[in-house]
Amino acid sequence: MENDLHLGQHISKRFNEELEEVRNLVMKMGGLVEQQVRSGLKALLAADQELAKKIVEEDDAVNALEIQIDETCTQILARRQPAASDLRLMVSIIKTITDLERIGDEAVKLGKNAAKLSDDGKSARQFVELRHLGEHVNETLNKALTAYARLDAETAFEIIKNDKVIDEEFDNISRLLITKMMEDPREIKNALRISWCARALERIGDHTKNICEYILYLVKGEDVRHNTVEEIRNKIAD
Amino acid sequence: MENDLHLGQHISKRFNEELEEVRNLVMKMGGLVEQQVRSGLKALLAADQELAKKIVEEDDAVNALEIQIDETCTQILARRQPAASDLRLMVSIIKTITDLERIGDEAVKLGKNAAKLSDDGKSARQFVELRHLGEHVNETLNKALTAYARLDAETAFEIIKNDKVIDEEFDNISRLLITKMMEDPREIKNALRISWCARALERIGDHTKNICEYILYLVKGEDVRHNTVEEIRNKIAD
Repeated sequence: MENDLHLGQHISKRFNEELEEVRNLVMKMGGLVEQQVRSGLKALLAADQELAKKIVEEDDAVNALEIQIDETCTQILARRQPAASDLRLMVSIIKTITDLERIGDEAVKLGKNAAKLSDDGKSARQFVELRHLGEHVNETLNKALTAYARLDAETAFEIIKNDKVIDEEFDNISRLLITKMMEDPREIKNALRISWCARALERIGDHTKNICEYILYLVKGEDVRHNTVEEIRNKIAD
Repeated sequence: MENDLHLGQHISKRFNEELEEVRNLVMKMGGLVEQQVRSGLKALLAADQELAKKIVEEDDAVNALEIQIDETCTQILARRQPAASDLRLMVSIIKTITDLERIGDEAVKLGKNAAKLSDDGKSARQFVELRHLGEHVNETLNKALTAYARLDAETAFEIIKNDKVIDEEFDNISRLLITKMMEDPREIKNALRISWCARALERIGDHTKNICEYILYLVKGEDVRHNTVEEIRNKIAD
């Protein structure tokens, strides 16, 4: 399918501005969520309780943005009756912000677990694999948001292709934690907390992948959900 | 806000039919997903590997419906340019099916864990609390889908109000599992599998709650996400 994206090319200047504004709101929400994830990881590795609390507070701003963006999209749908790529933009935004909001929720879980580990005088600092997974997920989210801003289908596809690496890292951590728990049952509680954190990070990876699928839908006009990497490659080939 | 829902009351008979058709597709998808959850739970409690495999296969049908419904909604948005409650119907469907699809994913996780437990000659049958949680979540999902079919805001509100009971049951299971693991470290692996199942059920509860929020949005025209139960009660009071 040919690229029919023509953001900012409407006869109505006001309509161009409205689309630009709502895209900016999504990017603002993305920035906030990315910040939450970064703080969640930092709180976890540094056993920083203050930072953990801050993430929970920031979640209100993220939630408020979700509602504001949905309202704005609904208004644009009602007043502008967009078609073709403008309509895809609206639908993709409505889907994207649901995933962004849930990434925020997962970051809050990181923060809460960080606070609990800190209560027990523990941090996840020693746990190299969790730090690696966290950094990887963080970087992927950052790339995805940049791809969203730039309507960069190629990077979106790369991220989808590499999601399985995050899953493998998660499986690896799960195995290590089971061994740890079996070796020292007194560590079960903390190991479980670290396991919840790993799960939260893996889910952030999933939501990031979803966002990349919406980027492909927007830019290429193709719904690539539930497709294999090979199928996606064929669908989006120009 | 007054109820402005007027499904099936358009001058265009064809438009009425289109809205009815897409609502029927959503209910079909809901029925499939409900079946998946029921099978997942059964597979888990009976250590039934065949049933577990079936859930994974059924997921293709659920995923295909998600894509079909999104396409249909996008077409209706483009051709009919719906306003007011018709537009809310479209937006609420686009959101609802994302949650339905993820409920299906969680049911698949139940199935996969059931198969692994069965590999090890175990089932979750003895675990009364998990069965209770499963039955509770199942029943709630069934009620939510009926509320969706009947546009029943009252039941949707009841479900949102009672979501915390599911969270409490989940917390209770987590505590029991930690004790079990500490008492007998050989049980760690299976206890973790049961813990993933409990988490999947809890998430199905969350998605069900989300669907109920969309019912309130559709019927009452109010976005009640991230609101307290008291705030929701005030918002939807006639």
